[in-house]
Amino acid sequence: MSWLVSDPDEDLVQRGRAALALARSQMPLLDGIQREAAESRPLAGHRLVGCVHLTKETGVLVQLLVASGAEVAWTGGDEVSTQDEVAAALAVEGVRVFGRRGMTTAEVGEAAAEAFGAFSDGPTMILDNGAHLIEMAAASLDRHPQLRGATEKTSEGSRRVRELGATIDFPFPVVSVNDVVTKWEVDNTYGTGQSTLDGILRATGMFLAGKRFVVCGFGHVGRGVALRARGMGARVVVVCRSAKTAVRARLAGFEVLPLESAARTADIVCTATGRPDVVTAEHLDLLPSGAVLCNTGHSTAEINLADLQARTVSTEQVRPHVRRHRLDDGRYLDLLSGGGLVNLDAAEGNPSEVMDVTFANQALVTLGLGGRPDRYAAGVQDVDAAQDEDVARRKLAAMGVRFDGSDQPAGTTRGVGEDKSA
Amino acid sequence: MSWLVSDPDEDLVQRGRAALALARSQMPLLDGIQREAAESRPLAGHRLVGCVHLTKETGVLVQLLVASGAEVAWTGGDEVSTQDEVAAALAVEGVRVFGRRGMTTAEVGEAAAEAFGAFSDGPTMILDNGAHLIEMAAASLDRHPQLRGATEKTSEGSRRVRELGATIDFPFPVVSVNDVVTKWEVDNTYGTGQSTLDGILRATGMFLAGKRFVVCGFGHVGRGVALRARGMGARVVVVCRSAKTAVRARLAGFEVLPLESAARTADIVCTATGRPDVVTAEHLDLLPSGAVLCNTGHSTAEINLADLQARTVSTEQVRPHVRRHRLDDGRYLDLLSGGGLVNLDAAEGNPSEVMDVTFANQALVTLGLGGRPDRYAAGVQDVDAAQDEDVARRKLAAMGVRFDGSDQPAGTTRGVGEDKSA
Amino acid sequence: MSWLVSDPDEDLVQRGRAALALARSQMPLLDGIQREAAESRPLAGHRLVGCVHLTKETGVLVQLLVASGAEVAWTGGDEVSTQDEVAAALAVEGVRVFGRRGMTTAEVGEAAAEAFGAFSDGPTMILDNGAHLIEMAAASLDRHPQLRGATEKTSEGSRRVRELGATIDFPFPVVSVNDVVTKWEVDNTYGTGQSTLDGILRATGMFLAGKRFVVCGFGHVGRGVALRARGMGARVVVVCRSAKTAVRARLAGFEVLPLESAARTADIVCTATGRPDVVTAEHLDLLPSGAVLCNTGHSTAEINLADLQARTVSTEQVRPHVRRHRLDDGRYLDLLSGGGLVNLDAAEGNPSEVMDVTFANQALVTLGLGGRPDRYAAGVQDVDAAQDEDVARRKLAAMGVRFDGSDQPAGTTRGVGEDKSA
Amino acid sequence: MSWLVSDPDEDLVQRGRAALALARSQMPLLDGIQREAAESRPLAGHRLVGCVHLTKETGVLVQLLVASGAEVAWTGGDEVSTQDEVAAALAVEGVRVFGRRGMTTAEVGEAAAEAFGAFSDGPTMILDNGAHLIEMAAASLDRHPQLRGATEKTSEGSRRVRELGATIDFPFPVVSVNDVVTKWEVDNTYGTGQSTLDGILRATGMFLAGKRFVVCGFGHVGRGVALRARGMGARVVVVCRSAKTAVRARLAGFEVLPLESAARTADIVCTATGRPDVVTAEHLDLLPSGAVLCNTGHSTAEINLADLQARTVSTEQVRPHVRRHRLDDGRYLDLLSGGGLVNLDAAEGNPSEVMDVTFANQALVTLGLGGRPDRYAAGVQDVDAAQDEDVARRKLAAMGVRFDGSDQPAGTTRGVGEDKSA
Repeated sequence: MSWLVSDPDEDLVQRGRAALALARSQMPLLDGIQREAAESRPLAGHRLVGCVHLTKETGVLVQLLVASGAEVAWTGGDEVSTQDEVAAALAVEGVRVFGRRGMTTAEVGEAAAEAFGAFSDGPTMILDNGAHLIEMAAASLDRHPQLRGATEKTSEGSRRVRELGATIDFPFPVVSVNDVVTKWEVDNTYGTGQSTLDGILRATGMFLAGKRFVVCGFGHVGRGVALRARGMGARVVVVCRSAKTAVRARLAGFEVLPLESAARTADIVCTATGRPDVVTAEHLDLLPSGAVLCNTGHSTAEINLADLQARTVSTEQVRPHVRRHRLDDGRYLDLLSGGGLVNLDAAEGNPSEVMDVTFANQALVTLGLGGRPDRYAAGVQDVDAAQDEDVARRKLAAMGVRFDGSDQPAGTTRGVGEDKSA
Repeated sequence: MSWLVSDPDEDLVQRGRAALALARSQMPLLDGIQREAAESRPLAGHRLVGCVHLTKETGVLVQLLVASGAEVAWTGGDEVSTQDEVAAALAVEGVRVFGRRGMTTAEVGEAAAEAFGAFSDGPTMILDNGAHLIEMAAASLDRHPQLRGATEKTSEGSRRVRELGATIDFPFPVVSVNDVVTKWEVDNTYGTGQSTLDGILRATGMFLAGKRFVVCGFGHVGRGVALRARGMGARVVVVCRSAKTAVRARLAGFEVLPLESAARTADIVCTATGRPDVVTAEHLDLLPSGAVLCNTGHSTAEINLADLQARTVSTEQVRPHVRRHRLDDGRYLDLLSGGGLVNLDAAEGNPSEVMDVTFANQALVTLGLGGRPDRYAAGVQDVDAAQDEDVARRKLAAMGVRFDGSDQPAGTTRGVGEDKSA
Repeated sequence: MSWLVSDPDEDLVQRGRAALALARSQMPLLDGIQREAAESRPLAGHRLVGCVHLTKETGVLVQLLVASGAEVAWTGGDEVSTQDEVAAALAVEGVRVFGRRGMTTAEVGEAAAEAFGAFSDGPTMILDNGAHLIEMAAASLDRHPQLRGATEKTSEGSRRVRELGATIDFPFPVVSVNDVVTKWEVDNTYGTGQSTLDGILRATGMFLAGKRFVVCGFGHVGRGVALRARGMGARVVVVCRSAKTAVRARLAGFEVLPLESAARTADIVCTATGRPDVVTAEHLDLLPSGAVLCNTGHSTAEINLADLQARTVSTEQVRPHVRRHRLDDGRYLDLLSGGGLVNLDAAEGNPSEVMDVTFANQALVTLGLGGRPDRYAAGVQDVDAAQDEDVARRKLAAMGVRFDGSDQPAGTTRGVGEDKSA
Repeated sequence: MSWLVSDPDEDLVQRGRAALALARSQMPLLDGIQREAAESRPLAGHRLVGCVHLTKETGVLVQLLVASGAEVAWTGGDEVSTQDEVAAALAVEGVRVFGRRGMTTAEVGEAAAEAFGAFSDGPTMILDNGAHLIEMAAASLDRHPQLRGATEKTSEGSRRVRELGATIDFPFPVVSVNDVVTKWEVDNTYGTGQSTLDGILRATGMFLAGKRFVVCGFGHVGRGVALRARGMGARVVVVCRSAKTAVRARLAGFEVLPLESAARTADIVCTATGRPDVVTAEHLDLLPSGAVLCNTGHSTAEINLADLQARTVSTEQVRPHVRRHRLDDGRYLDLLSGGGLVNLDAAEGNPSEVMDVTFANQALVTLGLGGRPDRYAAGVQDVDAAQDEDVARRKLAAMGVRFDGSDQPAGTTRGVGEDKSA
């Protein structure tokens, strides 16, 4: 049996189209790039396979790739994020979509394998999120001489790609678009900062002004959460392990404390470190009754749930995303979203506008790999600063912001799919 | 037919009890006052009729009044805010609740009249929100010689009560608890400031960092919205008509502009003035396509909907609380919550904790009127500064905040229901 | 011997004129009012005696009064604030200035008495700062039937004036211009907030980012200091005795602590309460070595200097405004400006622009008392809200700020010296 | 004739010692490192020549180097920054100091050459600020085989060192200590941000709340100025040429505009770009009368003074650091500090505490080069991340800040002068 979406329900298609239209109205960068690329069609003749959570925002990216001339196969890469209505709307536009909402982990793998094998002559281009497809390609380079390029946008995936690049000579460019201002500033800091606070408010409805809000981690995400929590009037305490980071947090006006001190009076603890076991038994024992626990870091294991469970005598789902754990000493703690990503579970993840910027980076590299492939060297590489600047110009134009370099219209430094270094 | 709630469904009662328990866990002031009052029972022998939206937070207030010794009759006072499960849970505790969710306006009036007449000997005490019950009492003072006191907590209601007091000699104390720091700072500024941003985020999911956010009005509510929008990274522009207010907004670091200037580049306009016709045809004509319109002021007519409708060629409900108006010139505007209160409609109104403080004020006056009625003069009056201080002390104690006056334990300046001036 | 300034040195006069010109360039409100009043001359025929610290800003006010038609006598009212060059420049313009920099306290009194008696027919108008002249008038009302009005602008003076008004029937209007937004917001909060931080920086050159900055008091001044200290990156702790105030500080995002807790880790303690003995032996014993102590409140006794001296084994003036007290336990504390007002001593007090707004209020009332005296009732009264609004409009116009009420040109609501209520 | 300081006046020596003691009390990192190094004496046998502005803070660094066992020769490297009293105090401690306050540019060169040649066997170590000594060494490597290491701390100097390293094979380590968080965050952003605002306040005494404050440049310094100006209540507008930077500024909540727009309503323009000709004729023509111009960037030519002079009909020094330029069209502009560095000229440059952190980096590398020279490779290199972390730990310990990595006492990761990679 195949996970290919076919003959979708008409009602589902209509809902998918509405969702895509709504997302498009908040994604001016992709919309503008699509209009440019629909003329030059830099992906004409290409067969692209992509693996990114199939949300309505990703759907807009897929439409751009199709308009740029590519044949496209897609899969979402996880169990729950595929929006079936978006899949349906794309399927009737000719995209080969594999998978659906609510697969098992094994099925996710099957769907990805099917997507990777969707074209009889194999894919020429990969657009990745987490390096799953790039790993497949790396394991079968000899069978895929037609591959011309790949892109990867996550931090974790970029790390993995660099690992692969250390031992494998990719015969085509593999471009990481992670380490650019328009990714980490827009997405990680301000995007996740906002959506995390949004998730906490939707989950709890709690009053934040004057609350003791402990943020574990002060990387891009932790800093964003700390700024937004302060913006809601909370008294923010930053917990971190690096002295350099502690200096930065302190000079930015935040209180800095060890978690064992901060926990004693915390109203809320939010982890944003990317590491497991940030909040463990020793901290759970110190938290005041009624404290809220949540996580917005990469790892779902930042709050040690086994330690929490070990102290729990009963639980109650007091609100849709709030499980109240009554502990053996009479206290209770409110765990949000089961310790998973509170911004994705209780709110909507990052706004369409934020995804627009992140995807614009990956789309432009992909179009460039199609339109002027000679300009990229083979092998693993970072996106260049000129593209970061180009995306920033497009974002400012979309926001209606003028600056001293804006006389040069956004996007004209370099046409879509053209030479990066010109 | 009566609107009295009787023989409620057991499942409804259980859900109501859970909601009340959840609210109580976030309402430490009422919980503490109830524990004190359950000992002294200052309302023993009193028949109290109340008219406040019957949410779970109001339910906790009602439980306090019952625990203080009163017989209680209650009505919600509007069409949609009564939570039937809360009504059910209170009904089985002996409260006479009148009304249900989804009444007509006429039916709301019927239910209020029934509540006012619930006791054969008439009520001895009134707890009001909007002065509806106090108006009924004012119109029938000769028939209600048993009345011993009344309280009112809204700005509008307090204004109405003062109007009444100008021509009517109330033979009992009528106390307004509106003009205290613990009301307008906690509730209007920080409570509504947060819940308004919460409503906008839930309604739209829009990215706020760097957005041009226009706040019309800079009273307690407008200032709160402006602070919280700035806290989310928006570029806030304040629109106001008073020069004094403009100076305050400007010195607080906000841009100040006339609406006709601010509208031209607004990403979002939020009204918070209490006046009708703040946003009218002339401004609608200037807004950029895609701008978001919403209201968090008292008046539901701050955005002139007729003017908006006159330019609209079609509308689409793009998200649950977002109606997209396509205009005759090709632009579109997104109206949130139909121009009604975005914090109540799209989010949850003010947090339980905030209601806790507001209700604590009204509860303490009511208990005082019961326990030491001789200490209050007859006639319309404001709550005194000592009570504001007492509520603030209770709030600080609940937050675990110590200050230089906190050696004196919260609440000990004055026992519940005791002399205010001691 | 008289304290009348006469035959001033020409060089002094020139320097005074330059100082007045510089101040005038930063006092657009007084400059504008003077131009209006020079036409209508509402003080023609009046003999005005004033008592305000004779700085260059006050000099601009005096020039306005002269241009409005008044004969003017002036005295500074304290030992050190008279700027002799300003006195000289005014003297040659015909103003009768009494006093000089560096008088004894007794001499200050003599100069004030001389100013009050400067006109053989007695003054018709008083412009006061601290109620010294108004007290003289109150003690001799029968001998001064020619008096037509008086104004007072300080908090302390206004309090004293109200005390006098409780027992004395002033036969002319005595107007307090203290309690207006354009006074306390501009002057007390933002003016003193800025100048206090300015004073601390000039005195110490210390690095403020990340420092623990304790503000005692959270009234208008304390709040201003707290906001500005936070703006420089300090971690601000607010100390206060009122629970209401503590709630306001906490909801505004500040830490709130008792001084005995805050002192233990303080890098700097700044008093802003108006009360004596805020920092006493018990706190001095807790401060870490190297902590900085300063005061910007009304009272010079907020830091108990006797307690500090009792622990001091030696002192050293390490910078012009910093005295280092080495204590008997090996610690040292740095006292700024001898515990006096750090913003006046180490910096320049409030900016000319701020004095411009404060004086505009007092000037407009004085001109009104001259131009339309029938519009003011006799006795002690507050300035009305319409004037607050008028001054705010003038300030906004001077700043180039437009707002929704600004189509009506500033100042046109009411001509200088015209009916207040029209 | 030699520029060697000898037989200094005793009074000068005393004042120098007091200045050094004051600085030391605000430089806990250097003080702590000195105490450690006085035991291990990692510079024993070394002859060190240094070239850093000889302020009291630099004097504390020199004392550390002497205590570490080195013979030291020093020169200030510019015309005006040498504090003669500090030179005197160091001279009597055996340091060979060359130069004095108020030399000509030619004399500065002579003094530096003398310092470089102060030791008959030549220096073994260089501590540089601007790469002047390193350039001398690079031009005479064959004559200086005894050289064992060099350090450089400025951005400009580090750039120059990298240029040199591209063509010259240094046979010893040349370490740049510029690109570390503890340098650019503490020094450039927060240090210069504070001192720039301090300079503007001391120069002008202007009221900043509500003012339109234009910052040109949003690098480390520009961002610091923007943050601190916002912290004083100003309405900050950021001007920059890079789109990426514009996005960062905008998302951080600042207005972003082209200078030609921002200039039209600016109250103050502060340049912080490091480039010449940021403010030129076209902008000068647009500024409103009374606008303030100042510079805190590296280049003294950021404001084009020739353009300003070309429009000027007369100037007046209205305050010590403020020259008022009256223009040919009737407007006037106030230029601060002659367009030079306003934080150094009108205030005191960066606080001692900030210099403490910056010097700690350079001192630790120098001690390491002495104590464990084998651990450094020859050639140009950046300081490693471990040292950045070590300095951060020392700074946090000095501030009394605990964090999750602080159980390990500051400085113990690596002893002074020990292996960096251990």
